[in-house]
Order: sequence, then C-alpha cells, then structure tokens
Amino acid sequence: MSVNWAEVSSKHLTYLRKEVIPMWESVSPDKEYGGYFTCIDGNHKVYDTDKFIWLQGREAYMFAKLANELPDATPEERSRWIELSKLGVEFLRDKCRDTTTERKDFYFSVARDGTPQVAPFSIFSDCFACTAFAQYAKATGETWAKELAWDRFLRIEERRSNPVGSWGKGIAGQSREFLPLNVSMIDVNTCVELLSTGLFDGAGDGPLKARIQMSVMIMLEIHFDEKLGVFRENVPTPGERNANAVDTHEGRLVNPGHTLEGCWFILDTLRFQYDPIHPNQPSQPDVVAKVCNIIKRTLQHGWDSEFGGLFYFLDAEGKPLQQLEWDQKLWWVHQEALLACLYAFRATKDPFFEEWFVKIETYIFDKFVDKKNGGDIWGYLSREGRVLLNLKGGKWKGFFHSPRAFLLTGLVAKELAASS
Amino acid sequence: MSVNWAEVSSKHLTYLRKEVIPMWESVSPDKEYGGYFTCIDGNHKVYDTDKFIWLQGREAYMFAKLANELPDATPEERSRWIELSKLGVEFLRDKCRDTTTERKDFYFSVARDGTPQVAPFSIFSDCFACTAFAQYAKATGETWAKELAWDRFLRIEERRSNPVGSWGKGIAGQSREFLPLNVSMIDVNTCVELLSTGLFDGAGDGPLKARIQMSVMIMLEIHFDEKLGVFRENVPTPGERNANAVDTHEGRLVNPGHTLEGCWFILDTLRFQYDPIHPNQPSQPDVVAKVCNIIKRTLQHGWDSEFGGLFYFLDAEGKPLQQLEWDQKLWWVHQEALLACLYAFRATKDPFFEEWFVKIETYIFDKFVDKKNGGDIWGYLSREGRVLLNLKGGKWKGFFHSPRAFLLTGLVAKELAASS
Repeated sequence: MSVNWAEVSSKHLTYLRKEVIPMWESVSPDKEYGGYFTCIDGNHKVYDTDKFIWLQGREAYMFAKLANELPDATPEERSRWIELSKLGVEFLRDKCRDTTTERKDFYFSVARDGTPQVAPFSIFSDCFACTAFAQYAKATGETWAKELAWDRFLRIEERRSNPVGSWGKGIAGQSREFLPLNVSMIDVNTCVELLSTGLFDGAGDGPLKARIQMSVMIMLEIHFDEKLGVFRENVPTPGERNANAVDTHEGRLVNPGHTLEGCWFILDTLRFQYDPIHPNQPSQPDVVAKVCNIIKRTLQHGWDSEFGGLFYFLDAEGKPLQQLEWDQKLWWVHQEALLACLYAFRATKDPFFEEWFVKIETYIFDKFVDKKNGGDIWGYLSREGRVLLNLKGGKWKGFFHSPRAFLLTGLVAKELAASS
Repeated sequence: MSVNWAEVSSKHLTYLRKEVIPMWESVSPDKEYGGYFTCIDGNHKVYDTDKFIWLQGREAYMFAKLANELPDATPEERSRWIELSKLGVEFLRDKCRDTTTERKDFYFSVARDGTPQVAPFSIFSDCFACTAFAQYAKATGETWAKELAWDRFLRIEERRSNPVGSWGKGIAGQSREFLPLNVSMIDVNTCVELLSTGLFDGAGDGPLKARIQMSVMIMLEIHFDEKLGVFRENVPTPGERNANAVDTHEGRLVNPGHTLEGCWFILDTLRFQYDPIHPNQPSQPDVVAKVCNIIKRTLQHGWDSEFGGLFYFLDAEGKPLQQLEWDQKLWWVHQEALLACLYAFRATKDPFFEEWFVKIETYIFDKFVDKKNGGDIWGYLSREGRVLLNLKGGKWKGFFHSPRAFLLTGLVAKELAASS
C-alpha cells in the first residue's frame, strides 16, 4: 500500500474549510452574551444554550489555532477567526470564573448569560482555558491573555495532585487512590501548546519542559500495561490500602481513545529539545519505539472485529464494565486514532501505520460524515455504526477534536508528501 | 385477549424459585466478611468484590421479603432466607455506616471487608437499608432492626430537601434548582414497605401516611407533564432563576421506567386507608384514573417501535440527550413496566393493560432470559436487543427488581385468577 499523502492533505483541509468551519462559524457564536453555543443538532440548529467550559475553552483555542496555523488562510479569514476566538476568551475571562475564591478557578458550566451552574470541580476547564488564552495571545499579542495562560498553568500544577478537590467522593485515608491518566495526558498537551506559542521562552521554558518529561514518564512507566500493551486509565498509588486496587473496576479500566491520543501527544513533544531530568529517562529513540508499539497494540486490542471501529472502554481482564456506553463508537476516539497512526508513521515509516491510517480514515468517512447535511461529523454511533444522537455538538462535542484532527492530518500529510 | 392468570402466576413464581433465587443463593453470600457479592458474570461467577450499599440493602430486604411473603415457602426455606437477610443487615449495621458523623449515614460503597470507598452522598443507600431493616424486623422480631429502620426513616425525612448535601456541584443561590422524581418515588415505596410490616402502627402510622400523601401529590401534580402524559424527572422549583429551567437538559429529561415504577408504587398505596391532608387531595378513584392514564401514555411514548422494548431515557421535546445509554433496554425498566400493567389491570380491568402485559412479558422472556445458563435474567441490552454486558449482577443490578417483579407478578396474577 502506498498512500497519496498530498491527496490526503488536501482532502482533510478541504473538509475542514468547506464543512466543519462554516457550520460552527454560522451557528455557534453567541453574539449577544459572548461565548459559544455548542449544542447543535443534525439540522445545524442550536437546541440548548448552556455553556460547558471545556468546550468554551476548546473552541476559543481552535479559532486562534486556525488563525495561527492554517496554511493559506486569507487575511480576512484570520481576522474573522481572531474575532471569534476573542468572543470566547473574553467570555471565559469575564463570566466563567469562580470569583468568590482566591484562585478563581473556572466553573464546569454556566447558563447562556454566564450564571454559574456547575462548580469548578474539573481541572480540565482550566487546562482548556489555558491553551485558549495562549493561542489567542500568540495570535494577537494581548498581554492579559499571555498572563492569564501562565496563571492557569501554575494553578493546574497546584491542583494536579488532587484534581477533584473537595468534590471527590473518596474517604481520606481509606478509599483506594489512583493516578488518573487523563491528568498526565492533558498536562503533556497543555505544555506543548504553551511551548509552541513561543511566548514562554526563557523563564517559562523550564517548568513546561519539566512537566512534560514528568508526565510522559508517568504515562510510559506507570500507566503502561506490559501484558496488554496499552495504558491503564487508573493506576493505584503506592501504599497498603491500594494493594489490591489494580483488580477493581477503576483499576481495570482501559480507554483505547485516551491511550492513542496520549501516544501522539508524546510523539508531539519530540519536536522540543529537553534535558533528561531523571536518571532513567529514556532516550528519544526508545520513546518512539515504545510509544509506537503501544499504538500498534492498542489499535489491535481496541478494534471491534465484528462491527468495525474502536471501542470506547474495555476492561483489562475482559470483565464486564460499569460503563454502559462501552461499545459505542465515538468520533474523537477515531480522530485521535487517526492522528496516532499518522504521527507513528511519520516517526517510523512502518507500513502497519499506513494501513491502519487508511482503515480508520475509511471508517470515519463512511460512518461519521453526514452525507445528507454535511457540516461537522456525527459524534456518537452505536456499536453497529448507527447514528446514536442527532447532534453535531453537545455537552462534550464541540469545535475541537474534529477540526484539530482535520487540521493536523492536513499539515502532517503535507509534510509526508513533501518528504516522499 | 384473555390471559390465563393462574398460568402466569405459576410461571413467574416457578422462574423465581428455580432460576433467580438459586443463582443468588449459591454465589452471592460472602460468608467470610458478611454482606453480598453482587458482581456476577454470565457464567454465574463473582467478578468483582466491591459492595454497593444500594444493593446490599436491597438484597437483605429481598431475602426477608421472600421469607415473609412467598407463598408455600417451606420452613427450611424461610429460615435459610432469614439467615441470608441477617448476613446483609448485620453487615450494613456494622460495616457500612459513616460513624465519624453524628447521623451515621450509609456509605455508597465499601470494599469486600467493609473499608469505605465512596462517601455517603446518596440518600437511597439509607432508603434501601431502611426497608431491609424493616422486613428483617418483621421476619425475626428483632427490636434493633425495627429501631434502626425508624431511625433511618427520620433521617431520610431530614435529608430529602437536599438529598445530595455537600456533594452537590450546584452553586448555592445561582444554579437552577429542581425537584427530583426519584426522591418522591422512593419515599412512597419506603413508607409503603414500613407500613406493610405492621410494625409501625400507632405512632409511626401518621408520619408514614403523611409522607405518602405528600409525595404522591408531588408526583401527580408537579412531575406530571400534561402534554406527554408522563412524569418529568426534574421539575424546577419556584423562583426567578428557575424561570427557564424547564427547557434545559435536566428539565426535559423523561425516564419511562421511573414513571412506570412510580405509578405502580402509587397504586400500591391504595391498600392503606389514609385521611386527606390537603384540600386538593384527589379521591382514590381520581388517583386510579390519572395514574392508569399515565401508565398508558408512558407505554406508548416509551416503546421503541423499531426494535421493541422501552427506551431508558427520552427528551420531552425530542432533543438530543446527554445520556449516551438512552436507547438501551434495561431489565428493571421492563420489569417495572410489567408490574405497572398488572396493577393497572387489576384496578381497571381495561384490556389495554392486559395486552401490554403480554407484550412486555414476551419481550422479557424473549430477550432478557438467558436461554443457555438460566439463573437470573440479563441486565443490559442494546437497542436492538443484543446482550450488552455479560453480567447477571453488577454495581446497579442486584437481587432486587428481578425477584421482586417475579414475586409480585406471581402474587397479583394469583389474585386475578382467583377473582375471575
């Protein structure tokens, strides 16, 4: 098999520009209150006006990212996307923070006008706001945005050892304790995003690179499951009371999409030079080999040989899951898998990844693309590949995984075309 | 159509005695630490040993209930079931309460040995423990169990206006506020269970009947949706900030299984005499007519005309749901629907309910019964009716809905057979 990477690049960038961006540009901005509507049905109408902070941050990030990185963007497009990003970052700054506390964390959700609805229990609200401010600062030079991005990075560092804080339901000193994969994964991506803006060279450079190294090591050495070749979502912390925690629902949980996304996040760090901070820090070639092997095994392990597509959750021992949605096919899982194949192929030129790139790209265009109304892709399919929810955006699906994957696939495929 | 109710009765009681009870009796009791294993796979093996308090209470209740009510139980069976109930109520009493606080609420889950895992955030842990203590007290005359049941009833009354307490993620005075259907539903059932033991006649009688009346009224007057003829799960409380709350994801949520279960709970209250406490309290015939009409419309609204079975969740406006599992077919929804048909038929003799009884009974025996291994029925099916999780018990499915439905169907069908 030999993929025509120039065609792939053009196909993905075209889909992004002709379908994904226009749908969100036309229906998502809330010009009255600021921020974005993200609950968008199959007819591309807003069906609910609540604002989920993860998605506010991610959309503001994505519009600035497009302004910063989409090849051949016209000046009109750039300035329009910067305006759209501004609509989000200002709403985040002014309406989405819990100003009753000193650290002013971001709420989880607010009503259309910014009335808070759900408490700031999620560290990821702050992570996605942080990257939005950084990309916006890069696009505009706004100092407040750069400063707020840095403030949030420091706050994330502070919260990461107890991300759920007082909203957790564990019993201190008694419940099992786990390291969650998502915190380390998002750490890596957040720091790469901050580094890539070039705004934090000098003083900021050190802490960002140190955090990347530490979180990569946690993923590769602690979350890595030797037997399955995947990451475990939750790994017990050391200590007597966690002795048997590995054989619990939490301890057995595997999320193939997270593993694959985490793997390309790690490969994406290799563009930055950083010094070993740990005596056992693996060399870059070792990291590449290990990560690509994880991608390979996760694709094989996570693929549904009966109906196609990647499962949402699996149990490491094959036991019944608590997640009723375990067998569903989610857009982001497949888009992150696509990027994992692409980054692994670029790093190794192993044809395995080219084959799986094609297999997953085919699944996405067959099943997730809306043949009738176009626009962004569907989000949620049943195991069989039936559209499960009549939505293009919702509480968790926003202007993020889909445009990011189309953009990065376009950029990396272009690079592969140029080098082949 | 004319159903042979004697045959129905015999079929359900036989399935209960030959399949459901033996499976749980053989695998569920934890003779070492007390309490029950409820995570039981398709081969009837324990796959996880955590103990979820809802299910500990429900199983202890169910064994005592069988001892108290199963017709033709032998003395050996009765004493075995009382012993099995004791295994649960003593574990609940000794290992499952948060003794660091004055009110000693029940945890949500503990490890096999009783080490607490998840905080006492759920009022229903206390509700199900309460009914377990009451049935056990009826079976044995144990005073401590009767007293603890009453202590929990008073505590539930205390917590019901803010059931999630400090574990909620709302922002006081700002987030929208809703009355949740489940609290009123379970109130009704808890009070009926306490009344039916006869242990609380006299002083206890008044508060139990008052709570039933109040909660029935909340369901029929506040949760009832005139347009759809079903209950809404969450109804905004009065106040400015809840003005538009009815058109939110929470406000639009409909759970056909809850509506149907709540309806037969209401019909089940009519065996007790109680005085009107509210000037608008409807008469009993009015209640029957209204409730049976709700059952009728919920069955029609909730039925999946494409694949059969009742949906798990619906949106009152037909908008996309947040619940990814919305289209799945759950055992309890169908078993509660069966009881709703049966209670409504007994009350009205309307052939509509006889027809739907047959339709739902057929679906249960076709799809949920495990033709290969027998034992208890499956819990979770895909929309199409495929077994979704290879389990007979788990975090939410225990020895409860299934044996209760087989028992009550057997009892009510026997009554219908005798009266026809």
